[in-house]
Amino acid sequence: MSLEQELRAEFGEAVLEGTPGEYLTDFSRLPGSADAVVLPSTAEGATAVLAWCYERDVPVTPRGGGTGVAGGASPAGGVVLALDRLDRVRSFEPELWRIHVEAGVTTGRLQELVRGSGLMFAPDPGAPEQSQIGGNVATNAGGPHAFKYGVVGDWVTGLEAAIPPGELVSVGGAIRKDVAGYDLKRLLVGSEGTLGIITAVWLKLLPAPEVVLPVAIFHSGRREGCAALVNVISSGIVPAALEVLDAETLACGSGSFPGGMPEDARFLLLAEADGSRDEAERVAAELVEVAGAGAVAIQAPRDREGITALWRWRSGLAFAAIARRGGVVAEDIVVPVERVEEAMEETIAIGLRHDLVALAFGHAGDGNLHSSFLVDPQNVDELVRAEAAVEDLFELAVRLGGSVSGEHGLGLLKRGQLARQWGPRALELHGEIKRLFDPKNLLNPGKKLAGPLAPGEQPPLATRS
Amino acid sequence: MSLEQELRAEFGEAVLEGTPGEYLTDFSRLPGSADAVVLPSTAEGATAVLAWCYERDVPVTPRGGGTGVAGGASPAGGVVLALDRLDRVRSFEPELWRIHVEAGVTTGRLQELVRGSGLMFAPDPGAPEQSQIGGNVATNAGGPHAFKYGVVGDWVTGLEAAIPPGELVSVGGAIRKDVAGYDLKRLLVGSEGTLGIITAVWLKLLPAPEVVLPVAIFHSGRREGCAALVNVISSGIVPAALEVLDAETLACGSGSFPGGMPEDARFLLLAEADGSRDEAERVAAELVEVAGAGAVAIQAPRDREGITALWRWRSGLAFAAIARRGGVVAEDIVVPVERVEEAMEETIAIGLRHDLVALAFGHAGDGNLHSSFLVDPQNVDELVRAEAAVEDLFELAVRLGGSVSGEHGLGLLKRGQLARQWGPRALELHGEIKRLFDPKNLLNPGKKLAGPLAPGEQPPLATRS
Repeated sequence: MSLEQELRAEFGEAVLEGTPGEYLTDFSRLPGSADAVVLPSTAEGATAVLAWCYERDVPVTPRGGGTGVAGGASPAGGVVLALDRLDRVRSFEPELWRIHVEAGVTTGRLQELVRGSGLMFAPDPGAPEQSQIGGNVATNAGGPHAFKYGVVGDWVTGLEAAIPPGELVSVGGAIRKDVAGYDLKRLLVGSEGTLGIITAVWLKLLPAPEVVLPVAIFHSGRREGCAALVNVISSGIVPAALEVLDAETLACGSGSFPGGMPEDARFLLLAEADGSRDEAERVAAELVEVAGAGAVAIQAPRDREGITALWRWRSGLAFAAIARRGGVVAEDIVVPVERVEEAMEETIAIGLRHDLVALAFGHAGDGNLHSSFLVDPQNVDELVRAEAAVEDLFELAVRLGGSVSGEHGLGLLKRGQLARQWGPRALELHGEIKRLFDPKNLLNPGKKLAGPLAPGEQPPLATRS
Repeated sequence: MSLEQELRAEFGEAVLEGTPGEYLTDFSRLPGSADAVVLPSTAEGATAVLAWCYERDVPVTPRGGGTGVAGGASPAGGVVLALDRLDRVRSFEPELWRIHVEAGVTTGRLQELVRGSGLMFAPDPGAPEQSQIGGNVATNAGGPHAFKYGVVGDWVTGLEAAIPPGELVSVGGAIRKDVAGYDLKRLLVGSEGTLGIITAVWLKLLPAPEVVLPVAIFHSGRREGCAALVNVISSGIVPAALEVLDAETLACGSGSFPGGMPEDARFLLLAEADGSRDEAERVAAELVEVAGAGAVAIQAPRDREGITALWRWRSGLAFAAIARRGGVVAEDIVVPVERVEEAMEETIAIGLRHDLVALAFGHAGDGNLHSSFLVDPQNVDELVRAEAAVEDLFELAVRLGGSVSGEHGLGLLKRGQLARQWGPRALELHGEIKRLFDPKNLLNPGKKLAGPLAPGEQPPLATRS
């Protein structure tokens, strides 16, 4: 009997026929392989699958919406355990600002549901229509509004997960404070499915702001734009989002910019004010005053259509960049905010050194940049050069006092990079925590590995797009 | 040679002469004992002391300001490693909203420093003049403003700690996002000195609000007051703080209430609006409208003196409660916010059952109550009854879906209580994490123990005050 048949004998229709291709990769397009794909419908079912596999030494790759870009959901044999069918809202108490959802609920559905009650799930990780809340918690996803509202993990008050060898563990719940035990919850948040399989989460919500006012401030160049960025922060303004986009990024999106891209625009500082109408207007006006000095153009749409169009354009930029040459090799480095200018400049210089078109944009208020190299995904030589370029990028991030990953995680593609950033004892603890939760190394094996790569070993080539 | 002499031979004047009493207990007044008290002046020095002790199997109890109430800093032999002399501000960049401080800086000094630059350290744990930032991070302290701004750990972007067997480990830094490794930082936050000795932290700051407007709304009873509490939340108002105080608590503080306690006041909902002047005024007006319906009195001071007096009165309540009978046995349970009324009611009932005067007050927006039993600390019989009462209290918290500790931690006094709250596998992981960081069990031994107590074993009697 094949593994698939054995699993079907035990778990019936939870086991798919064959291994459909969409379960074998993620947005990294890394080609994975699996012997079976299982879609349990309950947390207990997911736990039983984990226990079954653990007993038989079968690797298990947990999978959310598959929108990761670091290859974290790319399986290497064994079982893909997809959370798609764990999609129940277990409870929703809008009057108490909280919701209890299973891991497979898409982030978009969650956001729509809570918006209908005048609330918001404050973080806004990308690809909401496809990404699932379990995956967003497992990667501790970020997004533009992390500047004011923090990352996904900051909103998790409780978490349920299947832990090897196959037990369903629950910590926290519908409570806003808890210091009774070591923070197992935060250890599972961002662990990329290597310590446990998140099956459900309790989330804090917030009353939605009355209005949300974006302010797009175009500058003539990087230096001017980054000076405006630092000015905003040092002026004590607290925007909800504080994004930057460099000249090459703007070039990718110039055709689709609502109303046409202003002439001479070589840098965009995209900020957002939110709150009550008066409060948002006050902050928006301050943003224009402080960041608009010397700007080549300022656009501050006030109607719902204009606002939606602007953010839709922003969301589409990653795809516009891909469209340029067919692929991008992009990372999500973090630097202290005053080093954003230097990191953006160096990104371009690294591209030049490796004969690649480079661009940088991202969540600048948090110092979190999407530094990207445009590539033709069929051109292996380009991919090899792009890999060399991202190595330089990681070196840069760490040299500037930052991190190799702000929101995508290590996955498969960044394995070994943590060794640049942490000392030997921290790396050792990292490995020991993995062994403690998953002594057989069967849970998403090969992912979020901290240690340096063996000589000659290197991660697979991928476009991360 | 005594241990003290041996240590002095190695570490010179960092080792105190004798073991002064103030280093042998904390606010729990639990009498501890130690063979030596060491006050290193640098993180490297602290690490060297830990390494020295670890090699010789000498227990080490880390100590901050000694303001804990769970006996977490109460030593049982070996070395007290006090952080008092690690009191440097390593860097302060007000224009970038961040500061890098050593563990021994008092929370009050930190707050004063950042306030001088128009910023705030958003959480406000108690006893700021004496408590140290390292201790506040090690206990993940809360306070009234956690409702809007979260707990201390939410503001830590980087952390340096001495980890057994004696290495200085640093994770994170002056960066606002980082998902490169497992969240070692959050594992050390709230670990109460049992996994490592925090020597320095990087903190995020926020621009201080223009104004802070408290609103004190007095109700005729618990039911009316708790209805007002839930109304505030369900109305979508976001106050900075949302506190409650029951009739017995008000009785303790009635003599000192600024301007005199209103007649018929049997419950106080103390909320605070902050932000720009307009925003704070708007929120304060909403608070009065929503929570003031049916109130017996409303006081909303607008001058700095009145505001300061109100919060000073609030801060002094714990001491006013102690003054009633000489001591209190108080805990910091958490329940879902809609169960606050029930938890307050049950606190009184538990007191009656054990023939003790009980009261409850606390950070109700977070469901975090200080349920307290007034005792004469010389009366052993009362202390025994109070211990039985807090057992009932922990049972209550867990039965209502809550936690045995929202901000004080387990320390020595709550050891074993986590077993009510977590399942066997989570408890097992808790113990394994401890063994992983501290295989010889020398770091603050006996504290934050999760497992159930041995038959007949019980924590020492203490007044927690």
